Amino acid sequence: MNPTLEIFSQGEEIVSGQTVDTNAAWLSQQVMQMGFKVTRHTAVGDKLDDLVVLLREISARADCCICTGGLGPTSDDLTAEAVAEAFGLPLEFDSVAFAQIKLFFARRNRVMPEVNRKQALFPKGAERIDNAWGTAPGFSLQSGRCWFAFVPGVPMEMQHLFLETIKPGLKSRFSLKPGKLISIKTIGIGESDIQERISAVAIPSQVQLGFRAGADEVQTKLLFPNDYSETAMAALATSVASQLGEHVFAIDGLAEPTGDLVAVVDKLMNAGKHTLAVIETASQGLLSAKCIGTHWLLSTLYEQSLSRLGQKFSVEINADDLMATAQALAAAMQKSSAAEFVLVQLYAGDNKALHDKDQSIVLYNVLLTGAEFHQAVYSIGGPIKRKQNQAALLALDLLRRCLRHT
Amino acid sequence: MNPTLEIFSQGEEIVSGQTVDTNAAWLSQQVMQMGFKVTRHTAVGDKLDDLVVLLREISARADCCICTGGLGPTSDDLTAEAVAEAFGLPLEFDSVAFAQIKLFFARRNRVMPEVNRKQALFPKGAERIDNAWGTAPGFSLQSGRCWFAFVPGVPMEMQHLFLETIKPGLKSRFSLKPGKLISIKTIGIGESDIQERISAVAIPSQVQLGFRAGADEVQTKLLFPNDYSETAMAALATSVASQLGEHVFAIDGLAEPTGDLVAVVDKLMNAGKHTLAVIETASQGLLSAKCIGTHWLLSTLYEQSLSRLGQKFSVEINADDLMATAQALAAAMQKSSAAEFVLVQLYAGDNKALHDKDQSIVLYNVLLTGAEFHQAVYSIGGPIKRKQNQAALLALDLLRRCLRHT
Repeated sequence: MNPTLEIFSQGEEIVSGQTVDTNAAWLSQQVMQMGFKVTRHTAVGDKLDDLVVLLREISARADCCICTGGLGPTSDDLTAEAVAEAFGLPLEFDSVAFAQIKLFFARRNRVMPEVNRKQALFPKGAERIDNAWGTAPGFSLQSGRCWFAFVPGVPMEMQHLFLETIKPGLKSRFSLKPGKLISIKTIGIGESDIQERISAVAIPSQVQLGFRAGADEVQTKLLFPNDYSETAMAALATSVASQLGEHVFAIDGLAEPTGDLVAVVDKLMNAGKHTLAVIETASQGLLSAKCIGTHWLLSTLYEQSLSRLGQKFSVEINADDLMATAQALAAAMQKSSAAEFVLVQLYAGDNKALHDKDQSIVLYNVLLTGAEFHQAVYSIGGPIKRKQNQAALLALDLLRRCLRHT
Repeated sequence: MNPTLEIFSQGEEIVSGQTVDTNAAWLSQQVMQMGFKVTRHTAVGDKLDDLVVLLREISARADCCICTGGLGPTSDDLTAEAVAEAFGLPLEFDSVAFAQIKLFFARRNRVMPEVNRKQALFPKGAERIDNAWGTAPGFSLQSGRCWFAFVPGVPMEMQHLFLETIKPGLKSRFSLKPGKLISIKTIGIGESDIQERISAVAIPSQVQLGFRAGADEVQTKLLFPNDYSETAMAALATSVASQLGEHVFAIDGLAEPTGDLVAVVDKLMNAGKHTLAVIETASQGLLSAKCIGTHWLLSTLYEQSLSRLGQKFSVEINADDLMATAQALAAAMQKSSAAEFVLVQLYAGDNKALHDKDQSIVLYNVLLTGAEFHQAVYSIGGPIKRKQNQAALLALDLLRRCLRHT
C-alpha cells in the first residue's frame, strides 16, 4: 500500500476564496508522482482552535502531511503556535534562523522589523527548513503516525522548499514505489482533438491515460506501473506522440526534463548561437517577457498603430495581405537589427476584436532566417489575456519548429 | 455570530492535483459576501468510506455545507450513495428528475445511456435542485446541525445552480449580517513594514485587521461588523491609509471597486487623454504586456544592450550616471514618438545580476511629461521573475504617482 498524504493549507485568503489554492494541486501532483496516495486536502483560516483540532486529526489519520501558509511575521500567522499547542511542544528560539532572517533584510539594505523575530520560533524537536527565497523558514516534525512538513504559502518559496528539502526528505523516510510518468507536451491543439487523434493507439489497461490542459501547454500523461519495461514505455510514448505530430514540443519522463516551450526554444537558440529581434502586436510584450534573461533575444518592439509601424520601417501596410506586409517588415527590420533572425507578428482586426471574447483574431507570423521566410497563420479566440498569451506562444512555436529543422 | 459554512469538494481529479479546485474559492467568495463565516474547505477522492466519514463530521460541525462533484453517472460518482449511508436515508427514485435527464439527451438528439438512470436517485427527504445546464440534478437536505446542498462539480453548472437556487434558499433559511470589507492596496512596501507603520493607529477590537501579499500588490484589509457606521469606517480607513502614504494606489470598499494598479493607471490615463511610449530593460516587455489592450500605450521598446539602445537614439551612455542617461534617452525618444509621455527604465548591472537571486539590481526610472522629468530609484532583489515583475510595476507606479498630482 502506498503511504497516505494530506495537504493542509492555512490562511483566511484561502477559506475566504480570495486566493485559489493552487499549492494543494501542485503539491498533490508532486507527491503522487513520488508514490504517495493523496487522501485529503483541507484548508482552514487563521483561528488557533481550528488549526489545533485539524493538526490532531491529521496526526492520527495520515502517514504524511504537507502544510502551507501561516509562517509569516504577522499576528494572523499561527502555524508554529498551533503545532506547539496541538502536540504539547513548547516554542523555542532558533538563533540560526534568526540570523538568516536578519541577513535576508540586510541583503536588501533594510533593517529587520521587530515582528519578524517570531519567525525564528519553532516547536521543540522540530527540524528547520532553510528558506533562501523569503523570510519564513519552514520546519518538519513527526507527531503520532504522521510526519509533518510546514512551509510558507507563497507558491515560489513553497515550490523551492519542497523540491530542494522536503522531497529528498520524503524519499529517505518512506518506502515509495512510484509509477513512472511520461508527459507529452503540445501546443496549438486542444484536449478533445488530442483525445480523438490518439484513440488510434491501443493503450494497455495497466497504463493510466490522463490530460492536463494549462494556459501554456496541454500535457498528455501516461502513468506506468513501477515495474513496466523502459523499452515498452518509450515505444508507447513514441506512438502516442507521432499521432500529435509537430504539435509536440517536448516529451518529459524519458530522459532529462525539458521544461516549458521557452526552455525548449532557449536550448535550441543557444545551441545554434542564434539571435533574434521581434515585432509584437497582439502579444504586446508578452513574448519578450516570457523570454526574460535569455541571451539571444536582442530587442523587441511593440507598436499599437500598424500605420506607424509601417512608417518606422518605410513599409507600406497592405491590410488585404498582412502576410506580405509582415514579410516586408521582417526584411526591413533585418537591415537595421543586429540580430540574425527576425520574427514579426501581425493580426487582422483591431483593438476591439482583441477585447471581445466572442470574436477571434487571425494572426500572421513571419520568421526570417537569413534569406528564408517561414510563416504561419492562426485563428485565436477567447478573452483578451488568452489571445495575448496564445499569440506569444504561437510566435515562439514557429521559431521552435524552424529551429528543429535547421 | 455569523453561521459557519464549509466547502466540500469530491473527486480524484482534485486530490490528485490534476484539477485546481476553483469551485471552492468561487463559492467561498459568494457566501462570505452573504454573511457566512467559511471555516473549512475539504477535498476527498472517490472512496465511499472517506465520503461517509466526512459528511458525518461536517453535519456535527457546521451550520451549512456546499458540496461539489460526485453527481455524475459513472461508478466513481458516489455522493448520493454516501449521503444515504452517512445519514441512514434510503435512496429513492425521482421520476421528475428522470424525465429531465431523458429530455436533456433528447434535446441533443441522443438516447440516454442506461448509466445516467442513477442520477435520478436521491436520499429520502432530499429536495431536488433542477439543473438545466447538464444531466446531473443537485439536491439539498438538513442533517444534524447542518444544511447541505449538493451540486455538480462542472464550474458553469455549479455557478448557475448556486446563483439561481441555492443562494435564494440560503437567504430565506439563515439570518445573515454580512460584514463590510475595506482593502487598502499598496505597492513598493512589504507586509511587515506595513504592519509596523500602522501600529500607530488604534484599531477597535470589533474590526478585524488582515493582510494579503500577492506578487503585484499588498492588501491591508479591515473587516467591519455589519452595523458599523459608514463614517467611522471611512475615517479608520483614511487614517490607516495615511500611514502608508504614496504607497497606496487604491482603496476598495468605500466606493466603486478600483481594480489593480494597471486598472488605476488606465483610468487616470484615459481621464487625461494621455498617451505613453516606453523603453523597458529589466521588465523586458512585461510592463507592456500588463497594459494589454489599453488605448494609451502607443509603443514599447526593449533592447538587451544598453550601448545599442544609446546608438539608436544617439545618446551617450554614462554608466556612472544612469539617471542622466535615462533622461537623455527620454528626451530623444520624445522627439521621435507620437506619445505625449515617455517612460524610460534602466538598471545598473548586467544580465548576470538579473539572474542571481542573491543579488539586487538598482532601477532608474524616468518619466518625461512635457518638459518635466519625474524620477525614482529602487533596489529590487530576488529571483529573476520577481525582479522583472517589480520592475514593471514600479515603472507603472511612477506614472500613477505623477498622474495623481497633475
